[in-house]
Amino acid sequence: MSCVAEAPSRAALGRPPAQVFAAGSPRVLVAGATGFAGALAAHLLWRHPRLQLVGVTGRSEVGRRLDDLYPRYRVPLAIGELDLDRYSENPGPGAPDAGLDAAIVAYPHAAAAPTVGALRDLGVRVVDLSADFRLSSQATYEQWYGPHPRPDLLAQAVYGLTELHREQIADAAIVANPGCYPTASVLGLAPLARAGLIADVVIDAKQGISGAGRAFDETTHLSFAGENILPYKVAAHRHTPEIEQQLAELDPALADLGVQFQAHLVPLDQGELASCYVTPTREVSASELRELYTDAYADEPFVELVSAPPGTREVLATNYCRVFFAADGHTGKIVVLSAIDNLWKGTSSQAIQNLNVMFGLPETEGLT
Amino acid sequence: MSCVAEAPSRAALGRPPAQVFAAGSPRVLVAGATGFAGALAAHLLWRHPRLQLVGVTGRSEVGRRLDDLYPRYRVPLAIGELDLDRYSENPGPGAPDAGLDAAIVAYPHAAAAPTVGALRDLGVRVVDLSADFRLSSQATYEQWYGPHPRPDLLAQAVYGLTELHREQIADAAIVANPGCYPTASVLGLAPLARAGLIADVVIDAKQGISGAGRAFDETTHLSFAGENILPYKVAAHRHTPEIEQQLAELDPALADLGVQFQAHLVPLDQGELASCYVTPTREVSASELRELYTDAYADEPFVELVSAPPGTREVLATNYCRVFFAADGHTGKIVVLSAIDNLWKGTSSQAIQNLNVMFGLPETEGLT
Amino acid sequence: MSCVAEAPSRAALGRPPAQVFAAGSPRVLVAGATGFAGALAAHLLWRHPRLQLVGVTGRSEVGRRLDDLYPRYRVPLAIGELDLDRYSENPGPGAPDAGLDAAIVAYPHAAAAPTVGALRDLGVRVVDLSADFRLSSQATYEQWYGPHPRPDLLAQAVYGLTELHREQIADAAIVANPGCYPTASVLGLAPLARAGLIADVVIDAKQGISGAGRAFDETTHLSFAGENILPYKVAAHRHTPEIEQQLAELDPALADLGVQFQAHLVPLDQGELASCYVTPTREVSASELRELYTDAYADEPFVELVSAPPGTREVLATNYCRVFFAADGHTGKIVVLSAIDNLWKGTSSQAIQNLNVMFGLPETEGLT
Amino acid sequence: MSCVAEAPSRAALGRPPAQVFAAGSPRVLVAGATGFAGALAAHLLWRHPRLQLVGVTGRSEVGRRLDDLYPRYRVPLAIGELDLDRYSENPGPGAPDAGLDAAIVAYPHAAAAPTVGALRDLGVRVVDLSADFRLSSQATYEQWYGPHPRPDLLAQAVYGLTELHREQIADAAIVANPGCYPTASVLGLAPLARAGLIADVVIDAKQGISGAGRAFDETTHLSFAGENILPYKVAAHRHTPEIEQQLAELDPALADLGVQFQAHLVPLDQGELASCYVTPTREVSASELRELYTDAYADEPFVELVSAPPGTREVLATNYCRVFFAADGHTGKIVVLSAIDNLWKGTSSQAIQNLNVMFGLPETEGLT
Repeated sequence: MSCVAEAPSRAALGRPPAQVFAAGSPRVLVAGATGFAGALAAHLLWRHPRLQLVGVTGRSEVGRRLDDLYPRYRVPLAIGELDLDRYSENPGPGAPDAGLDAAIVAYPHAAAAPTVGALRDLGVRVVDLSADFRLSSQATYEQWYGPHPRPDLLAQAVYGLTELHREQIADAAIVANPGCYPTASVLGLAPLARAGLIADVVIDAKQGISGAGRAFDETTHLSFAGENILPYKVAAHRHTPEIEQQLAELDPALADLGVQFQAHLVPLDQGELASCYVTPTREVSASELRELYTDAYADEPFVELVSAPPGTREVLATNYCRVFFAADGHTGKIVVLSAIDNLWKGTSSQAIQNLNVMFGLPETEGLT
Repeated sequence: MSCVAEAPSRAALGRPPAQVFAAGSPRVLVAGATGFAGALAAHLLWRHPRLQLVGVTGRSEVGRRLDDLYPRYRVPLAIGELDLDRYSENPGPGAPDAGLDAAIVAYPHAAAAPTVGALRDLGVRVVDLSADFRLSSQATYEQWYGPHPRPDLLAQAVYGLTELHREQIADAAIVANPGCYPTASVLGLAPLARAGLIADVVIDAKQGISGAGRAFDETTHLSFAGENILPYKVAAHRHTPEIEQQLAELDPALADLGVQFQAHLVPLDQGELASCYVTPTREVSASELRELYTDAYADEPFVELVSAPPGTREVLATNYCRVFFAADGHTGKIVVLSAIDNLWKGTSSQAIQNLNVMFGLPETEGLT
Repeated sequence: MSCVAEAPSRAALGRPPAQVFAAGSPRVLVAGATGFAGALAAHLLWRHPRLQLVGVTGRSEVGRRLDDLYPRYRVPLAIGELDLDRYSENPGPGAPDAGLDAAIVAYPHAAAAPTVGALRDLGVRVVDLSADFRLSSQATYEQWYGPHPRPDLLAQAVYGLTELHREQIADAAIVANPGCYPTASVLGLAPLARAGLIADVVIDAKQGISGAGRAFDETTHLSFAGENILPYKVAAHRHTPEIEQQLAELDPALADLGVQFQAHLVPLDQGELASCYVTPTREVSASELRELYTDAYADEPFVELVSAPPGTREVLATNYCRVFFAADGHTGKIVVLSAIDNLWKGTSSQAIQNLNVMFGLPETEGLT
Repeated sequence: MSCVAEAPSRAALGRPPAQVFAAGSPRVLVAGATGFAGALAAHLLWRHPRLQLVGVTGRSEVGRRLDDLYPRYRVPLAIGELDLDRYSENPGPGAPDAGLDAAIVAYPHAAAAPTVGALRDLGVRVVDLSADFRLSSQATYEQWYGPHPRPDLLAQAVYGLTELHREQIADAAIVANPGCYPTASVLGLAPLARAGLIADVVIDAKQGISGAGRAFDETTHLSFAGENILPYKVAAHRHTPEIEQQLAELDPALADLGVQFQAHLVPLDQGELASCYVTPTREVSASELRELYTDAYADEPFVELVSAPPGTREVLATNYCRVFFAADGHTGKIVVLSAIDNLWKGTSSQAIQNLNVMFGLPETEGLT
């Protein structure tokens, strides 16, 4: 009965692709652009002044426009199948109109590694959003995720928490983009770990529903998730070993620390808060605390120290991490509150931050 | 790693069924208790003092406890398969410990009619929540829903908008429970239609996400439905003929009226507002309007006339419909705002209201 | 331009008060019915079959109907001023048509004590929703709230966590209704404290916006509170001493325990989760844990043990507290998750539960 | 107890202003930056590559940092008092390091006109976000808003719906930025009005809570506004004459049309949908409709025609307006759905769009 004849699409009618590429800009592909992480990465690349988004692929929805699937991201590209042959004659960085310099792989855990491997075989640098290359220990990985598809590549991978591993990321072949919970938690705890101040830690994390991704089930249905506070995966969250590995790198004395980590879903879309309760190895004064955090982050473009407890809304749709710290005289513990947008700094915008570092661009390019 | 050995369930541990049945109370079954409408109907029956909930069945989730699937409803019954043979020797109303007096059927459109028919064959009275028996015209039904599975039963069905058809409902074999949009719309417009005052009408309806039911898709995912106002089914909503049929019954001059109806989803769980804009057949004074609505509803237990525009929250989780009316001197139109809870008065609690009428109980029993 | 002449009100037009009192039912007043806690208490009393709501008073909004201020609660009484003289000739319990047996006082902290005192002077039993009589130590109270207005009454007060102090509540003159955070936290931890198993504890609590009450500010404005996770009052929440006092009563060894408590606001209306991380005094097996909790709560009508982590939506608008417990083999800690509706079990419905106990009624009366 | 000594602020610690001004860029002030509209305008100017934000002023909160009041906007400027003397020696456009070229005035209705006048006296060009200069008829203004403070300036004002009045805006001294409801409604209806196709129209508009602004009351409190659909100002919305004026300009035959306009608040932050139901003056074919809208908007950078009903989330935090149109064969009416972000295209980003036009910059500068 409507006047609209063709199949309705959420993409705007008649919008021509308006991409203008700077010459010599690195050419980047997003593999797995149909999920939340890949779609946002494509959006950020599309508006990036110096990284060229040359294609978006998906394991479903092939042929559909990405701005039909995610109208708010306005990326007017059709979703393609991943065709690695197309890049097999990869002419290398800077070659005109062809080739691939880098890829963001946004596949589920275990599904990512083979594709990352295939891209590496072509000489393409990869930022992998899955967990496949985050844990340096194959054994620990397999305890949580099953057999590792490409353990041979583990040695090439660098953990992509930019603020901690910037120098290695610059030269990395594979960057294992951190999980969102480890991003918030480790940025909040790193100054204490580095100073050897952590004896024990409880991390209570809360996240918006986008953390559950594009899954369609009771977890994400508004009639279940709305007006709800839902803890999940008690005593068994697979982000725990990732946090433990990073803390142990900063303080070898923490090699055997069992981090108490608990996740909760709360009724919003994007936003994540890690509330960290640290039992310190010794008494710490307020001024020492302040010095530790200022030393660690004063020059960081994307870490903001704040003097009031941060709401996640303050970092919504940004690459910022806001960190608050306080010594509690009543209990002797240290409270650290670390807020990020789980889809941005927790996932996709940190991937862009890493690409900026990998290609020698200003780290904030396209992110502010 | 958790101490919990068995498969986790959201049902409370060790809660024995606490049902106490009054002797001689009508025995009622809910067929299709896994969806939102059936589950709420089961909840309302479970706490009803004079209607016995004797079973809940589902076309999926068989064996699972209903209070595991819907913990908030606290109905500690296992979901069974619909076994009509069990009732084939139906001893009739009032027989001790056996038999079935009535059923609420909460199946999708077209799937309901065969089961309603089978129950009728056993002499069971049915409140059908689907659209299968709402339209008296088979032709109109088939235009929107496809072939009618049991057109022979259409003549036995009464339209279950309690306030309009109370007397017929009392004796009905099949009560076709109204759609939620028609419930709000027709209650709002009935006094005007009955007085022959409607020349034209636009109905703009807004509803919470529960209106989309237990479907798991982009419509209900909080990351899509949250922070959104989404119109849908432009110029093609199948609730339109239901509204038109009821208005035409009240005013035969409206037999050919094309009602402009538009639905929208807004980010809440339960709640529905029908905003009705009526071009009147003649000028109507404020005092005449007031008299019409007061005459219609002063004695209705579940229709509340209000002097401020009603928010849907005022009727959340109740069987009330709140109606506001005003004559707009600027345009000459009449504005009627009608608010209900789409799952309660719009669906399941109206079904209980109808059962109360069908079994000669006080109409408000179990509903206040 | 509207046809509505009088000042618009959200109360339904022409609804007569429909209260029917049972003879001899205790007569109860709600003082401070304009706030969230008092209004809900009035609502629960209004529909209670055996407690008579004889009046609602406010320090503002006098003369306005309560169902205009809170349409969803449908209490058709005008808000009055608190006139104690009216009750000065209090004829005592059971006297026909007059007098006052009990009052729920829902005033802010420090403002409550004088009114509680005046009511006591008239022989009226009081459930006080403020913090004024929760702490047995006057010194601790004054550290957090300033000078205590009526320290002489402290000895008459019983802490109103029904499950822990039922016997004393039965005879109490003043029941100090617990704060919502202590209700969830202490119910979750009591079995461990009683068994001497708590060496250290971190409590991370999350609550809906109704926890901030009727305050109109950035905390409650949807454009600030929506899409946000907001921690507040770091290392300084005044519910901490209340929790510490209760734990120390259960285990004197905890007299000097400093509880690490942190509160967060999340974007929903009603709901509260206390996530408790306990360092045990010794290793505890899963079966021992289960036995402790089952022993404590198997016969409690309003505590539900669950085997899946409880979402707060499971207890929305109920007096239930859902408790989940697990031993974490990885860290050696015990995780307890305790979910309530902060306005119901956390405040107003627990007040009704206490009144039931005080007047010898079934504890669940009017609450299921 | 916390280690934080100074008064907590939501502004990040130690962030120096990072503004870099392009030489010769127009210098712009935001007067009234403490409200939602002014704050967002300041945010958009702060990140604008070619318009210099030289100051933010407020009638309250003077001295406070804007990024403390609105952390998410990250404008690190202190709120000042409006000191017009400072600009009395205004050296004119392009003068280095001094003077003022334009101001966005974000004051309430009636309060804005005197300040707009004072700025005009200094030769400053003004985009006024209030209603004070939107209505060309002083009489109509005074019917809704009271005495007009500066009727002498009405003739200088241009209505700032950019798509309709671009040429006049380029040279305007005062641009009266449209209301959000008129923006969505008139963009949706303009092609029909221009073609003389509107005989009658009903506009049913829905908006997020940010539409109520920074007001702290029941309208915006999440415990009232959440889970609610709230119609307001029945038959009396002051945006109606603004819409009527614009339609009459496009089609003089509509000079006496009474537009039926109804507003509703729904529980989200930013987003607005105008659902327009047009009774056409004659039958219109689908292809004619399509041609009308394509002709009107094919070259507009910020109007997107869509073939599926637009959700407001598709335009969240953008300057886009998405328009869907359909002829309803059943009723003969035309349905137009127009979606914007009420704070962006409906208010502040449209102000930037207008400034771009006023200063000869690309219209999309700083907005994509």
